[in-house]
Amino acid sequence: MNEFELIKKYFQPLSKKSPSSLNLNDDVFFDKKSNLVISVDTYIEGNHFLNFKKPDLVIKKIIRSSISDLICKGVQPKYYFISGSGNRKTFSNQNLLKIKKSLNEEQKKYKISLSGGDTVFSNKLSFTIISVGFAKNIVFRNKSRSNDDIYVTGNLGDSYLGLLVLKKKIKLNNYLSEYFVNQYFLPNIKSKLTLQLKNFANSSIDISDGLLEDLDKLLINQKLSFKLNLKTIPISKNLKNVLKLNKLSKINFISRGDDYQILFTASKDKRGIIKKISNKLRVKITKIGIIQNKSLKSSVIDQNNIKITLKNKGYIHKF
Amino acid sequence: MNEFELIKKYFQPLSKKSPSSLNLNDDVFFDKKSNLVISVDTYIEGNHFLNFKKPDLVIKKIIRSSISDLICKGVQPKYYFISGSGNRKTFSNQNLLKIKKSLNEEQKKYKISLSGGDTVFSNKLSFTIISVGFAKNIVFRNKSRSNDDIYVTGNLGDSYLGLLVLKKKIKLNNYLSEYFVNQYFLPNIKSKLTLQLKNFANSSIDISDGLLEDLDKLLINQKLSFKLNLKTIPISKNLKNVLKLNKLSKINFISRGDDYQILFTASKDKRGIIKKISNKLRVKITKIGIIQNKSLKSSVIDQNNIKITLKNKGYIHKF
Repeated sequence: MNEFELIKKYFQPLSKKSPSSLNLNDDVFFDKKSNLVISVDTYIEGNHFLNFKKPDLVIKKIIRSSISDLICKGVQPKYYFISGSGNRKTFSNQNLLKIKKSLNEEQKKYKISLSGGDTVFSNKLSFTIISVGFAKNIVFRNKSRSNDDIYVTGNLGDSYLGLLVLKKKIKLNNYLSEYFVNQYFLPNIKSKLTLQLKNFANSSIDISDGLLEDLDKLLINQKLSFKLNLKTIPISKNLKNVLKLNKLSKINFISRGDDYQILFTASKDKRGIIKKISNKLRVKITKIGIIQNKSLKSSVIDQNNIKITLKNKGYIHKF
Repeated sequence: MNEFELIKKYFQPLSKKSPSSLNLNDDVFFDKKSNLVISVDTYIEGNHFLNFKKPDLVIKKIIRSSISDLICKGVQPKYYFISGSGNRKTFSNQNLLKIKKSLNEEQKKYKISLSGGDTVFSNKLSFTIISVGFAKNIVFRNKSRSNDDIYVTGNLGDSYLGLLVLKKKIKLNNYLSEYFVNQYFLPNIKSKLTLQLKNFANSSIDISDGLLEDLDKLLINQKLSFKLNLKTIPISKNLKNVLKLNKLSKINFISRGDDYQILFTASKDKRGIIKKISNKLRVKITKIGIIQNKSLKSSVIDQNNIKITLKNKGYIHKF
């Protein structure tokens, strides 16, 4: 049983009386009456982050990952709560100073304020972050329409390569190692775009699990599928060079998750405004495919214009 | 360094720009503009609950413990979020069914709705519960005044005796064992009183750490102290009998925590209204002492009218 089935079977029935829960289907809670938007995420050492050797970077990563849930919905985060559990070593004075400094920097960068939380001592290190914002409307997850364009912000895949560097599964020169590790810890989330999203997006999600998995979530319970053009999926120059030098396939790098870019769909008649806003805000936004009826299977067209039907996503080889 | 010092040194500076954080001093977040009240608590196996042999009861206990933070402030909880981390055994079908059933019962009892959360797999079992409510005003923690009466709802100490039974540190007959274990798992929180509290209370807190520790928190940073009358501190008939039969001292049982009763202070001129509301709602409310100026040391008067000056709370003997 995966998380989705678990939620559906055991928890959705409990949320029925609260329309604001959005049927536990939408990564956020949205209470229309109070304009309240809340997301809750738990991060565990060894699972969501490798270890706590760089507390300053881990803290930044999980804060960005948490507020990313609001930002991709068109909601400016305002408050955050952090509940940390760890042992005396985790919460040493040195680490606490680093945590404080990182939180302070993130607060300034994203205009958010620490508002509460909890601290408990435990041998297992984990953090739960709660992000809170207010909005009259949000961009929902499952409101794509047939023929919508599919867009993504920024670049994909850098974070995954950073993880491979950290896991010592690939060796790069110092400059590139640092670049990719930084992309892993400090995702360049597109908070500048937040308040504009509602002007053009029909649906949205942030890419945390991986482009294709998150696209599946975007279309869940709808009679829709996607068609992506691999060539157009944006990657950084650095990633392009690494793929070329090491003879690696792009397809194996663009759906590994931890990108925290915004994946959204919009009607074709919004192409003009999207281009305009992209230029004005200097936020890279790339059209990577279209939404189609489910009678057509979800697919990716590769560099040679060959259609790959997605079966269990098995075409993605483990690195 | 205790949790209080840790918060003061590292986290309070980060909350300064958010008045709603109440300086991280008040167990809840209260945003006056949006009427939003939030509490966040993390519960860890072996720390906040013994084990997960009785998932149905553990879940009820932590839900009540979490909403108790709002209820003691005069705020009706409306939404709750739950982030659970545990292994496949913790989240077996059987356990999930029990968790679902318990949550459903608590939802009906306290009129709250599951609104979101997270589920992660980990070998360490823990839950973070977020309770959300709305209120125009709350009863703050540190607004006691000199000469206020000190009140407590319900009875104290039953929960601690239940814990001793579970830990096999005391042996009682079946009837009593069941009674006290039930009091441990299912604290009888006084949600009926919530919306009335603002009519008379100057300050309030729920008793989670223990009567005397929570009184200290209630008076922190104020030039006040307390004087309690041990004789008036309410305990159940069952606890009275156990103390008598086993020749145990009351003082060792009334400040052990996990009671989740409301501790509040009120001006003397509110005695009438408090008595009236207590009778009308059938909620036991007992006056147990008074607030005084700090020039007088905090003290407890024992059954024989002898004043015990509190030094490091050392008069409480380990059981």
